[in-house]
Amino acid sequence: MNYSIILYILGWVLNLQGVFMLPPCLVGLIYKEYHDALVYVIISVCCTVVGILLRRMKSKNSTFYAREGFVAVALSWIILSMTGAIPFVLNGDIPSYVDALFEIISGYTTTGSSILTNVEGLSHANLFFRSFSHWIGGMGVLVFILAILPMTGGSTMNLLKAESPGPSVGKLVPKMRQTAFILYTIYFVMTIITIIFLLFGGMPLFESICHAFGAAGTGGFGIKNDSIASYSPYLQTVLTVSMFLFGVNFTFFYYILIRRVKDAFKMEEVRWYVGIYVMAVILLMSNLLYHGYAFGESLLHVTFQVASIMTTTGYATTDFNLWPEFSRGLMVCLMFIGACAGSTGGGIKVSRIMIYLKQVGKELMQQIHPRRVHVLKMDGKEIPHATAHSCNVLLMTYVVVFIASYLLISLDGFDTTTNFTAIAATLNNIGPGLNMVGATGNFSAFSNFSKFVLMFDMLAGRLEIIPMVLLFYPSTWKK
Amino acid sequence: MNYSIILYILGWVLNLQGVFMLPPCLVGLIYKEYHDALVYVIISVCCTVVGILLRRMKSKNSTFYAREGFVAVALSWIILSMTGAIPFVLNGDIPSYVDALFEIISGYTTTGSSILTNVEGLSHANLFFRSFSHWIGGMGVLVFILAILPMTGGSTMNLLKAESPGPSVGKLVPKMRQTAFILYTIYFVMTIITIIFLLFGGMPLFESICHAFGAAGTGGFGIKNDSIASYSPYLQTVLTVSMFLFGVNFTFFYYILIRRVKDAFKMEEVRWYVGIYVMAVILLMSNLLYHGYAFGESLLHVTFQVASIMTTTGYATTDFNLWPEFSRGLMVCLMFIGACAGSTGGGIKVSRIMIYLKQVGKELMQQIHPRRVHVLKMDGKEIPHATAHSCNVLLMTYVVVFIASYLLISLDGFDTTTNFTAIAATLNNIGPGLNMVGATGNFSAFSNFSKFVLMFDMLAGRLEIIPMVLLFYPSTWKK
Repeated sequence: MNYSIILYILGWVLNLQGVFMLPPCLVGLIYKEYHDALVYVIISVCCTVVGILLRRMKSKNSTFYAREGFVAVALSWIILSMTGAIPFVLNGDIPSYVDALFEIISGYTTTGSSILTNVEGLSHANLFFRSFSHWIGGMGVLVFILAILPMTGGSTMNLLKAESPGPSVGKLVPKMRQTAFILYTIYFVMTIITIIFLLFGGMPLFESICHAFGAAGTGGFGIKNDSIASYSPYLQTVLTVSMFLFGVNFTFFYYILIRRVKDAFKMEEVRWYVGIYVMAVILLMSNLLYHGYAFGESLLHVTFQVASIMTTTGYATTDFNLWPEFSRGLMVCLMFIGACAGSTGGGIKVSRIMIYLKQVGKELMQQIHPRRVHVLKMDGKEIPHATAHSCNVLLMTYVVVFIASYLLISLDGFDTTTNFTAIAATLNNIGPGLNMVGATGNFSAFSNFSKFVLMFDMLAGRLEIIPMVLLFYPSTWKK
Repeated sequence: MNYSIILYILGWVLNLQGVFMLPPCLVGLIYKEYHDALVYVIISVCCTVVGILLRRMKSKNSTFYAREGFVAVALSWIILSMTGAIPFVLNGDIPSYVDALFEIISGYTTTGSSILTNVEGLSHANLFFRSFSHWIGGMGVLVFILAILPMTGGSTMNLLKAESPGPSVGKLVPKMRQTAFILYTIYFVMTIITIIFLLFGGMPLFESICHAFGAAGTGGFGIKNDSIASYSPYLQTVLTVSMFLFGVNFTFFYYILIRRVKDAFKMEEVRWYVGIYVMAVILLMSNLLYHGYAFGESLLHVTFQVASIMTTTGYATTDFNLWPEFSRGLMVCLMFIGACAGSTGGGIKVSRIMIYLKQVGKELMQQIHPRRVHVLKMDGKEIPHATAHSCNVLLMTYVVVFIASYLLISLDGFDTTTNFTAIAATLNNIGPGLNMVGATGNFSAFSNFSKFVLMFDMLAGRLEIIPMVLLFYPSTWKK
């Protein structure tokens, strides 16, 4: 293990954290929350100093392998969270450090699960930082570092691989840094557009920015106790569209940008994503109408909620916990599917679901026609066997983590549905689940032990399991 | 598709069904239930006649491929169930044919889920047939046919492959028929031994036979409304041991029989099976003791319930639905693991779980040491890549069937836990789930539509998914 390179990367991460603390500090100054602003400045300075010290420890050996990549990514996210939790405690908004840690991990991992019972009681600086953490976490911190970091040689690919969601890392252009730069530009521009559309509907600037951050990162922290429910249908629809678009594979937007529109609309994953969305809306609408819900209002809620859950955002305009059982069940299924790979959304990802289903289809055809050669394809190209296999193994690791987490938090004694959906909501980075952790509930009642389990799950979900599991795997640390 | 060979096999199956109807007829005569006995005789005659007619349709072409094997097996089980349901209706014990079909599918697939609210109201003949169906279904009907059938040429292996549980069919001896014969002999002798032990504890002969059938086939139909709860600790313990042994891979017993004791105890799957059992007992005992349950009684219940659920039998001495949440959750996990491959138990099977976990371990090691060669091994031999892959695909197919079934039955509007565990209990051939379908509940409240979904799941679980899915896959029926 090349420890010095890991410390060097962590140094950069801390320096970035120092920068991340400045916008909430500014918000604090604007809203005359001077105490809060001061806290953010102090932490910013501390992070910067420690970061610079760590960066000095860089050895000559700057190459690192997959192992170092995974560990560096996992530790980066942990250190971001550990420092990011401090302002909430020092500002007095979340007195317990464990709770603050839960909240900020939920932020960075773009989960949106909260331990707060009264969000509206937070200061503007803290509200902003909460939403800002979604925006940072959505695209990934190390991708950003890659875009600016002078890392010579070495397979920096291993960092991107560990942090980027999806079965395979698609480099848009041959150069890593350029890819990262393009991705961030798209992300930035789309966020701005969302803010503009929200402002246009009469939402105040501060609220527009926070909500746009939550939608862009597919996070889901609201700034009102009833999430998005009290906003106008126009604003809700803007967020529906925004969430939906941030759940699309960013390669799609890149293709549009370079005018390969045909290629964009041919992307199989995007087609499936749209298909699943439309199908889910139809099924939910049928179920709700059958149970006597009104058409117009239901359509507004259903289009919003499906976008919110599929993209793993977690905003709510209504409490789907109260929907009929079929709709509740369908929403839980959508939680697992998640958004496209290469988007800011979480979950298992549409492309993996495709690979799973295609393998099932291939197996069935193989049984029927044993002598024919059957090939797995996506976008017209053969899916490499290694990609399919690593998707399969990821599913198993996912299941193992899911079951272990479920059993551990069930020690708290809450009901089966609460436990099951609490894991589903955190491991897929969604936010709300059903029953106690439903859209109107929160995670505050869990014991600290369970909260740590859920924090692990949020990080595991964001980093696609392996980096977090490796962190606790003894062989990782052996020479 | 070679239709004539399939009809020929179905003919044999119907002839066998004719034979299966005779023991319950005899029971009816002994207990002077003459009407019931008559019904069984009539159906027996009908099955025999139709069977003989079908067997006449045999064409010269007696070979068949995997496709024919799967279809033949699936249709065999369906025809067994459709004819097996008739006596319950004609005897008047289960007036609805759909309910009777549910009950007998639950019997043949060794599930043990029931729609009956008062089991004790059934006639002796019907009670016997219910339990007898477990015993028949446990080992498999086609394996039996293979042992007696003069099938020349052709890959009869395809039949065994489709009906035998487990990731790979282990032929004990090179000849198919001999293997089947050995398996049935072990099965028969172990059942007799169980009966003797039960008689020794003062259980009446009729009850001993029924319970031994239920344990041998890992079925779980009881003949009392409270399942096994009212029997003595001795009798409960006999059943615990019996269920546990019938969940062991039968190769183990074969090794013991031919005095390769060392090889028997070296079997990795058996070791894991014992390990999981012991671990589950320890965890449950800790949890129950922590919640103030008495030690002695708990140990009796826990050892029984873990054996019952892990082997997918489903007998109950207590209502584990009332246990603390952690214990309930752990029981649900055990439902999925199931028993050993090559036993009469259902579920995903211990050997598959091993293959999944070993793949996860291999993947993690691969990440840490990318340049080393990592090999999957079981019992000291490399696991063929094809075996691992088909296990993986089975898991995905399993998940797809699980989710689809869950959504479909949730249309009935029962609670999430009931729906989830109803599917878990039927797809894994266990019997009871939690809440409404818990040990003291039953499946009668579900709509007919849901009952059909659950019947499909029971058959899919017993035949390991693929044959049943292929039956509904359009390409299967294309030329």
